[in-house]
Amino acid sequence: MAEIIIHEVGPRDGLQAEQQVVPTGQKLAWIRSLVAAGLDIVQVGSFVHPEKVPQMADTDELFRALDARSRGGTILSGLVLNEKGLERGLACGVDLFCLGVSASETHSLKNTGMGSGEAQRRIIAAAGEAVAAGRKVQVSVQSAFGCGFEGPIPEERVLDIVRAYLEAGLTSISLADTAGHAHPGQVRRLFGRILQLAPEIRCTCHFHDTYGLGMANIYAASESGVTGFETSFAGLGGCPFTKVAAGNVATEDLVHALRRSGLRTEIGLDGIVAVAREVAAHFGRDMPGRVHKTGPLPY
Amino acid sequence: MAEIIIHEVGPRDGLQAEQQVVPTGQKLAWIRSLVAAGLDIVQVGSFVHPEKVPQMADTDELFRALDARSRGGTILSGLVLNEKGLERGLACGVDLFCLGVSASETHSLKNTGMGSGEAQRRIIAAAGEAVAAGRKVQVSVQSAFGCGFEGPIPEERVLDIVRAYLEAGLTSISLADTAGHAHPGQVRRLFGRILQLAPEIRCTCHFHDTYGLGMANIYAASESGVTGFETSFAGLGGCPFTKVAAGNVATEDLVHALRRSGLRTEIGLDGIVAVAREVAAHFGRDMPGRVHKTGPLPY
Repeated sequence: MAEIIIHEVGPRDGLQAEQQVVPTGQKLAWIRSLVAAGLDIVQVGSFVHPEKVPQMADTDELFRALDARSRGGTILSGLVLNEKGLERGLACGVDLFCLGVSASETHSLKNTGMGSGEAQRRIIAAAGEAVAAGRKVQVSVQSAFGCGFEGPIPEERVLDIVRAYLEAGLTSISLADTAGHAHPGQVRRLFGRILQLAPEIRCTCHFHDTYGLGMANIYAASESGVTGFETSFAGLGGCPFTKVAAGNVATEDLVHALRRSGLRTEIGLDGIVAVAREVAAHFGRDMPGRVHKTGPLPY
Repeated sequence: MAEIIIHEVGPRDGLQAEQQVVPTGQKLAWIRSLVAAGLDIVQVGSFVHPEKVPQMADTDELFRALDARSRGGTILSGLVLNEKGLERGLACGVDLFCLGVSASETHSLKNTGMGSGEAQRRIIAAAGEAVAAGRKVQVSVQSAFGCGFEGPIPEERVLDIVRAYLEAGLTSISLADTAGHAHPGQVRRLFGRILQLAPEIRCTCHFHDTYGLGMANIYAASESGVTGFETSFAGLGGCPFTKVAAGNVATEDLVHALRRSGLRTEIGLDGIVAVAREVAAHFGRDMPGRVHKTGPLPY
């Protein structure tokens, strides 16, 4: 369980936050480059109603276009918000199902139309179905470190959802800082409590950089025993149903840091930098990621 | 020695990196606002030849304009590169002298016209004179974590300079990541070694955010026992004599993080945010700091 896993969420969390819908062919080209770079997991899209998030309308088509041979050693994940999404994902070849519950009642209602309690019951049932179908599953707690609508989120509320996941036998758990409110001390405390409950599980983190603490929170999480990191090419990202959220930590910046630290040296950083540059050119604006602008250090 | 100290270096490290020379009256207004916000130390400018860095030509005048009463509880620091600078600083009311040696021979030559060895001898002598004159002194090692010209900097070279400082009785020591090459593991190791040599000294860190690791490095430093943090309003900054350097970590982002963490809650964040916004408006471009754009969290 110790190895570091990078989960690229740009094609989902990044592109869903953009006004402009990216053509399917362009998405496919970027995803193929990210797979070729050797990233561990790439999130292709989310199975949400196409009228609610038109940017994600082609998720099923993308999975079908990426056959087993073209996936190489990369796991392709898809985000599922309800039973209908699970059905779509099972039909189109999702390797890893990502399902989540928001710890914020307000964010949960805005994001899914369900309160946290109902979402928890339905998401755990859907996760069980995905496991029964032989698929990999990761469950998450969204707004785990604070909410743009509700402010502070009590840790016990996050831990209650985590306990429900553990009781259902779900052992790959991600905490998402949807609004970017987390700070390093909080990250260490909360992940520390979870890994005390269940030391053998895989913990993953997902930080938005709204207040400039994204990378510091990743480092704090790694010091707590977290080994999964969700990041986005060029630092794109943001939930369309939250308030004041900036992008995710940039994948190229994390891969660069891990290479400099000697912790993951074999990932194709140049390929990821190239995608980030294409993404910046495509949207025609300055992106938050650093290394695609400076170029990587040669050592 | 445990309390956290924030050293605002924007008026020096920030403004020296800008093409445009800021009028003295405008600098004074910003410095007065930073003092009013209750920052621990504010670096007013550097005593460098006005033809070499015209942005700093008014440093003496700024110190003279800031009399003891207008400094409140804030210490005003000035950067000194040689004996002439020391003489100017002693004559105009510098509270804290900051003097440094670059661990990179190439950077040292470009920045000061002296190699590291000569710079070390002369800087330690000048520091001794400042101490003898009853002033506070902080000594630093620049390019301590890597150099844009030379690449990796051997830790022993940094430790040799630190040992020379300690032998000279200088116990407030800053390591500057001039080019932004540091990563958190390196930060912990190097500061850990220094604090093993001399556990009772005050260690300070100064990180540029070139590769997106500035705040993560601050967190790593704090976990190693570092209690001094040099940051710059709006995230301005960069040495004019280095290669590919981005700005410093933004003061408002660090003060916001410390307030969220409960570690420093009394600093006037709103005043710092206001200065950062004025700075961004003055230069008319997007600045790297986050919190002056999003506004602080109310909790």
